[in-house]
Amino acid sequence: MLSLRKLEAAFERGDTLNTNRAEAFSDGVFAIAATILVLELKVPHVEPGGLSEALLERWPSYATYVVSFLTIGIIWVNHHAVMERIKNVNRPLLFLNLVFLMAVAAIPFPTALLADYLQAGYDERLASAIYGATMAMMGIAFGLIWAYAVFSEDLLHNTIDLHRARRSLLIFAAGNPLYLLAIGVSLLSPELALAIYALLALFYLFDVLPPLQEHEGKHG
Amino acid sequence: MLSLRKLEAAFERGDTLNTNRAEAFSDGVFAIAATILVLELKVPHVEPGGLSEALLERWPSYATYVVSFLTIGIIWVNHHAVMERIKNVNRPLLFLNLVFLMAVAAIPFPTALLADYLQAGYDERLASAIYGATMAMMGIAFGLIWAYAVFSEDLLHNTIDLHRARRSLLIFAAGNPLYLLAIGVSLLSPELALAIYALLALFYLFDVLPPLQEHEGKHG
Amino acid sequence: MLSLRKLEAAFERGDTLNTNRAEAFSDGVFAIAATILVLELKVPHVEPGGLSEALLERWPSYATYVVSFLTIGIIWVNHHAVMERIKNVNRPLLFLNLVFLMAVAAIPFPTALLADYLQAGYDERLASAIYGATMAMMGIAFGLIWAYAVFSEDLLHNTIDLHRARRSLLIFAAGNPLYLLAIGVSLLSPELALAIYALLALFYLFDVLPPLQEHEGKHG
Amino acid sequence: MLSLRKLEAAFERGDTLNTNRAEAFSDGVFAIAATILVLELKVPHVEPGGLSEALLERWPSYATYVVSFLTIGIIWVNHHAVMERIKNVNRPLLFLNLVFLMAVAAIPFPTALLADYLQAGYDERLASAIYGATMAMMGIAFGLIWAYAVFSEDLLHNTIDLHRARRSLLIFAAGNPLYLLAIGVSLLSPELALAIYALLALFYLFDVLPPLQEHEGKHG
Repeated sequence: MLSLRKLEAAFERGDTLNTNRAEAFSDGVFAIAATILVLELKVPHVEPGGLSEALLERWPSYATYVVSFLTIGIIWVNHHAVMERIKNVNRPLLFLNLVFLMAVAAIPFPTALLADYLQAGYDERLASAIYGATMAMMGIAFGLIWAYAVFSEDLLHNTIDLHRARRSLLIFAAGNPLYLLAIGVSLLSPELALAIYALLALFYLFDVLPPLQEHEGKHG
Repeated sequence: MLSLRKLEAAFERGDTLNTNRAEAFSDGVFAIAATILVLELKVPHVEPGGLSEALLERWPSYATYVVSFLTIGIIWVNHHAVMERIKNVNRPLLFLNLVFLMAVAAIPFPTALLADYLQAGYDERLASAIYGATMAMMGIAFGLIWAYAVFSEDLLHNTIDLHRARRSLLIFAAGNPLYLLAIGVSLLSPELALAIYALLALFYLFDVLPPLQEHEGKHG
Repeated sequence: MLSLRKLEAAFERGDTLNTNRAEAFSDGVFAIAATILVLELKVPHVEPGGLSEALLERWPSYATYVVSFLTIGIIWVNHHAVMERIKNVNRPLLFLNLVFLMAVAAIPFPTALLADYLQAGYDERLASAIYGATMAMMGIAFGLIWAYAVFSEDLLHNTIDLHRARRSLLIFAAGNPLYLLAIGVSLLSPELALAIYALLALFYLFDVLPPLQEHEGKHG
Repeated sequence: MLSLRKLEAAFERGDTLNTNRAEAFSDGVFAIAATILVLELKVPHVEPGGLSEALLERWPSYATYVVSFLTIGIIWVNHHAVMERIKNVNRPLLFLNLVFLMAVAAIPFPTALLADYLQAGYDERLASAIYGATMAMMGIAFGLIWAYAVFSEDLLHNTIDLHRARRSLLIFAAGNPLYLLAIGVSLLSPELALAIYALLALFYLFDVLPPLQEHEGKHG
């Protein structure tokens, strides 16, 4: 029989994955989630002469496509940067990563929801809040990954300045209150909230992690 | 002409794939199957003011999304752990792996089936049993992969303790009777069965394989 | 201005891709084509109590899913075996490979076509012939890849026995007349043709390529 | 507080990704975008005996499938060739690459649009112009990637002849005016424009980049 202690040990045991494999799976989820966004861009079926108007009416579909694609793509860049600083991935970290990827993979759903209800012109406040909530969940899970790595004994590369790594958590987590703010703004103006979502994607373009120093990345 | 003997030899011949390639294909199937689960989360089209209710009614879609995503993700972790212990992949093993992946790739179908009929409020017992049967098929194929590797002469890494590896088959296969149990529970309460499916995913989080010992994984 | 000669030279120039990259892209197409087959398994929407019958009626969907998944998976194994024997990939070979992948990626379409019309109970002969024609196109493009590599001066690994490689083309191409036969059988019995398609997938399980000899694969 | 200068520094800081990772993500997007094109090939549902006619009527679906698949596949080859000449990827380059991939990933949408309206027999001029505009956006973003790399100090491999690299930009960008031409032709004859799109894909088959010289590619 498996005792609870043994289970705990089996769960936390140092039989770690090297990060290459975890990244390969994550890369797959990022690339697929970003690319199937296009499946939500439906071809309108209209009477002769009605195509241009029908396409223009669907501007929310294109706007949300761009925001979601850039968000996923930029989060991918940061996910890579985090993984590059992690030496080994143990099972708790893998589980956190799975929860994070579950939020990333879900993005096409709130994207389609927001696009459809912005176009419908009603219930778009709720749709925008759900979009923001999905992004916040992703941001929180991502923050937990980095926090877990930073506060573990053995997961970071030795060349990382641990003090700076821990301080970076602050800026790292800064996106999340902004997502909460955008959820609030959703209730006033979903269009403005969408603009904030776009700006937040760009915000994540900036690199806030401690450098890898001499050590030039594990792939080097 | 090809004689039957030659065919057998061609089939079992030691012209093995290294596991990296088999893993790359498998990773792809895992990542895609998990990520296209989101395509089953349909945007409801309702009258003004009806969105929040329509979304809440669809709780089975979100619950089954989470259970299926975690199951696929955790099975991926274990698949990797198995592959890491295998030195070479011959054609029978590749074929077993294909059958296993065919079950993994099918998961979005019973997931959508269970979500739709839990929401409909009828025929959900059958839908839940089919969900469990798909999971059991996956579990059985996965068990066969490990059993085949463990009882072959030449497929495991030399550093693996063969005795422990064979003993691990028992725990390894323990998920399958539990899936069968959940199929039975489906006939009483599909909601309870879904909870068991979720617990089974978490059960697979625990690492029951023999360690790789000194040898730190083939990628090391 | 680019002269035609220069174009030819630019096209055939030895600025080759190593096969790893071509394989990564091909693997992606194989894995995605196989995994999105599941999207053709539609959930039936029926009256209470009607689910089991509705699911049983859809046996052609499951049968074609299995045949197409195994075909793609097994062709993937063989594609890998071919790529492992090729040292470099030049642009004509890349183009052949693209045409081949275009046929692989198309498979979900004739699969859905055959499933829907086998279930409909009419026009299934045509659907089955189109299924076979897609498979034959894939087989022919695959044969051309191997033929091109074998008859080029510089593309095969040096350890390959060129004489055996050329002779292997015969067996390699043997699947194609069988696909043509199955197209003919489609006109008599689409169900029998489907059985032949299944057998042909298994036929490709056998390794007919010349061994890599001492040289243990480029990844070794 | 982050000052603007610090933001700029964080954005441009030399904490570069090696190109392998950027390529892995890009490969995923290319492979998925190409493979999900098949999801736009809808099975027609017709009366008994009507299948062959219904399938023939849909020739635009097959023609656009072939053109889009080949375009994506060939652009992939060229993207690889560009990445092979780049040593490191910094954040501005990653962002350009994301914008480029966003256009690649969008291709299934104008493909379905053009197919549906060529078949409908009206509004096909607009659909064809939108198809061309998507391709032009992709081409322009791709040109910017190469231009950015060529005019940066530190991103190209040292063995690349910088003079030839800069000159190659001219031919590299030559596809874009041709896409603009095809957009114009769309207004006269969408079928002719489609033929030009096909020819442009083939045009990109030719390798116009400076050779890697002695240095045989970073993967060698």
